[in-house]
Amino acid sequence: MGWIEMAIATLRSWTLAEIAARFDLSFQGEAQTTITGIATLNNASEHDLTFFANPLYREKLRDCRAAAVVMNADAARDYAQACLISAQPYLAFARIATVCAQHSTAQASGIHASAVIAEDVQLSADVSIAAQVVIGSGCEIGAGSSIGAGTVLEPGVIVGDHCTIMARCWLGAGTRLGDRVRVHPGAVLGSDGFGLAWSGHGWEKVPQLGGLLISDDCEIGANTTIDRGSIDNTVLEADVRLDNQIQIAHNVHIGEHTAIAACTGIAGSTRIGQRCLIGGGCGIGGHLHIADDIELTGMSMVTRSLTQAGAYGSAIPVEPVRTWRRNMARLRNLDRLIRELMNGNKHA
Amino acid sequence: MGWIEMAIATLRSWTLAEIAARFDLSFQGEAQTTITGIATLNNASEHDLTFFANPLYREKLRDCRAAAVVMNADAARDYAQACLISAQPYLAFARIATVCAQHSTAQASGIHASAVIAEDVQLSADVSIAAQVVIGSGCEIGAGSSIGAGTVLEPGVIVGDHCTIMARCWLGAGTRLGDRVRVHPGAVLGSDGFGLAWSGHGWEKVPQLGGLLISDDCEIGANTTIDRGSIDNTVLEADVRLDNQIQIAHNVHIGEHTAIAACTGIAGSTRIGQRCLIGGGCGIGGHLHIADDIELTGMSMVTRSLTQAGAYGSAIPVEPVRTWRRNMARLRNLDRLIRELMNGNKHA
Amino acid sequence: MGWIEMAIATLRSWTLAEIAARFDLSFQGEAQTTITGIATLNNASEHDLTFFANPLYREKLRDCRAAAVVMNADAARDYAQACLISAQPYLAFARIATVCAQHSTAQASGIHASAVIAEDVQLSADVSIAAQVVIGSGCEIGAGSSIGAGTVLEPGVIVGDHCTIMARCWLGAGTRLGDRVRVHPGAVLGSDGFGLAWSGHGWEKVPQLGGLLISDDCEIGANTTIDRGSIDNTVLEADVRLDNQIQIAHNVHIGEHTAIAACTGIAGSTRIGQRCLIGGGCGIGGHLHIADDIELTGMSMVTRSLTQAGAYGSAIPVEPVRTWRRNMARLRNLDRLIRELMNGNKHA
Repeated sequence: MGWIEMAIATLRSWTLAEIAARFDLSFQGEAQTTITGIATLNNASEHDLTFFANPLYREKLRDCRAAAVVMNADAARDYAQACLISAQPYLAFARIATVCAQHSTAQASGIHASAVIAEDVQLSADVSIAAQVVIGSGCEIGAGSSIGAGTVLEPGVIVGDHCTIMARCWLGAGTRLGDRVRVHPGAVLGSDGFGLAWSGHGWEKVPQLGGLLISDDCEIGANTTIDRGSIDNTVLEADVRLDNQIQIAHNVHIGEHTAIAACTGIAGSTRIGQRCLIGGGCGIGGHLHIADDIELTGMSMVTRSLTQAGAYGSAIPVEPVRTWRRNMARLRNLDRLIRELMNGNKHA
Repeated sequence: MGWIEMAIATLRSWTLAEIAARFDLSFQGEAQTTITGIATLNNASEHDLTFFANPLYREKLRDCRAAAVVMNADAARDYAQACLISAQPYLAFARIATVCAQHSTAQASGIHASAVIAEDVQLSADVSIAAQVVIGSGCEIGAGSSIGAGTVLEPGVIVGDHCTIMARCWLGAGTRLGDRVRVHPGAVLGSDGFGLAWSGHGWEKVPQLGGLLISDDCEIGANTTIDRGSIDNTVLEADVRLDNQIQIAHNVHIGEHTAIAACTGIAGSTRIGQRCLIGGGCGIGGHLHIADDIELTGMSMVTRSLTQAGAYGSAIPVEPVRTWRRNMARLRNLDRLIRELMNGNKHA
Repeated sequence: MGWIEMAIATLRSWTLAEIAARFDLSFQGEAQTTITGIATLNNASEHDLTFFANPLYREKLRDCRAAAVVMNADAARDYAQACLISAQPYLAFARIATVCAQHSTAQASGIHASAVIAEDVQLSADVSIAAQVVIGSGCEIGAGSSIGAGTVLEPGVIVGDHCTIMARCWLGAGTRLGDRVRVHPGAVLGSDGFGLAWSGHGWEKVPQLGGLLISDDCEIGANTTIDRGSIDNTVLEADVRLDNQIQIAHNVHIGEHTAIAACTGIAGSTRIGQRCLIGGGCGIGGHLHIADDIELTGMSMVTRSLTQAGAYGSAIPVEPVRTWRRNMARLRNLDRLIRELMNGNKHA
């Protein structure tokens, strides 16, 4: 654990039997085995817990020195040392680690003296507000929610129960969060959309009057931006998961359980279905409809609606520059080349 | 209005005749019709104003329950209910909504006690400075400008009149804003450019000494970054409009009225013309010259100067993954395949 | 210098001989020539220093009015006016400008009264902490380091000596910086990675427990985000240089001296070699290995490991929209078209 232990410190000591009982797992090995840390298969030492979920790492399992390994029943049959058994070892590991990690991220409860909170703000029980926070008039913060240092809530923001808003976020007027929403540092929620009308002499700003509704259990990555609606709302349904540096334009609607990787941008008024998996660096045009259960590979561009579930892609993988340049020189003329070749065939 | 009304509240009540007089529009219908909100064609209820600008929505207009609809004279001829008539209905709607929306975004004037402002800062009349703002020595803030919570102005920043700098922005030394500039949350203006010199043993930083000049009426989106010049200035001419998460490198010069959609990046020392429309997710190389009136479709890559006005594109739209993979396998070998086919034709 | 002089002010006056002595350069011309500013070849006036490194600008050199020009010995032979002579004129210029520029960016030493610093934080000598900073329990700040306004350090962050952390950054628990690290405004270091496990009913968060290790002499651009490791650490080796708005996912490892341009994203657990040069807007997939001395052109996508040093590319440069659309229509069917053409050839 080395560095991590020093930095994030203090997992309390568990026994193998205690973990098994707490997470309803069976186990092999000595019930009193002491576990004080989490580590990878590679680096686990004799008091660490790790997991085995990917058959590619079977060799690493053989050399593993961990106190115990989370694995499925099949793997456990061949394993002579201490293990915790689960049909979904990655999920079980995630749940165990969540409980262990709480020790290091638990925030002090209470309201820091340097926070600037309007008089009429409604704070529920067990709210934690860090230093230098600013909360505008009419905001409501639900029970057990925490607001990180330097975060700004404009007037009228509603935050549900048990939300974690990390440091240095901004939530604009018209933003409402459900329960258990998690917002990472630097996120901007409810900014004005990019609405412009040409007057003949220059641009005039189209005022952005809609709200932003983020439903229960959503997660918003660091420095991600989501615009408020122009008239109606921008909406994230429950359990939408957004990575870092994503841009969601005004009036977008994203369905339940959809997960989007970093650096993707979605243009205005597009509707994304449920359970979609969208890779990093994608661009999705405006006013489109993406059906449920669509998967996009990284850096794909979508310019028309996709109505059939399934996987789609469009980006080109790298080649050595000489090959790439030659191919691009052909691609520039592809239509003409194909036409000539077809005529050549005909003439032949 | 439901949710929005609750969240952003309080459009004051207007009559149809008052709006027509204020915005110099003619109208049909009962002059005393009360309007208290803004809504889409879809959702407008009997006290809302909406607009009709896109013929695709003609059917929605038929079922619309709005108090009044902004539309052009042609449409009004066939419309039996209350309407406001304009040759540019979207623009007229934008102007009306701007006035209505002012009620909800009006910031309290004055200087918050928690702001840290150097002694020699020059504040003009009617300046508003929110909580936790930091303003360095030698800054000047023009009349009627407002600085949002947690924003930092390094020493020597000049802000013109009637600017709106939202919360949590950063303006670096050497940054000067004209009048009526609007900066959205999280924007970083005047950061160091990416200047490196290789010493033979490692990188040495090339100091970034230029300024950043943002002219009148520009708008800068959330979490957008613009670097200061390396020696001369980075410049945005008047009425440049930047969406969220755009990156503008050092020494870039952008012409009047150019609008750029989200997630686009422009490399150093490139010059962009006037009235360009640049789609989202584009990449424009360094040291290029993009002429006036150029349009780029989303996710385009520009690697040479573009001297002719017109529309350009380069990205590939998605296909189902199987088709995409097969096409990419061909594209990898495109030069060779075309050559073989040409030889085949010749030999045939 | 105009605008810049006004904005960033106060380079102190040097003589040509003083600069030559300080930077161990020879010179031509009058030793007592006064230099008070830095400018481009184009704009230099009679008290400015400039440099000549690119033969393309030879004509500009002829008309240059600078007090002195940094150039190599070859160029100096043909140059009748004052110059400083270096085998690496751009590097020499960078070093001179660094010393000159220090006057304008030197931060006041000391700790601002509005900063919120936990009692057990260890501050070394000559630490500068600006207004509204928040520093959590257990942090350590090395000698001569400065923390800009509004920056937040979560508990347990370790900052080395002579680091410059600009305003409005966020450093998460488990983040450790070496010496002389420079972090630009809005950067988020050590955020949670995007770790999700599907439970059958919804996503569960996989806790992110690893650290982030940023080694000596690294530079991190504005609004760039780097995730902490999931179990082990995310690592930047010494002298890694990251531009603005880059996204580095959990467990990524980047080798010494690698430089990455703006808007590039690197997915989880990928290992990048030493001395790589990665263009802007690239996307690099997860769990890959990129060898030493790899160069990627802008907007490239990498989906497999690259084991051979060299330059790679994949993006398509723009064409006029009509040509582009026609070519894309062919590309959609490329596999089928090539197949038909091959059969045509065979039949012919």
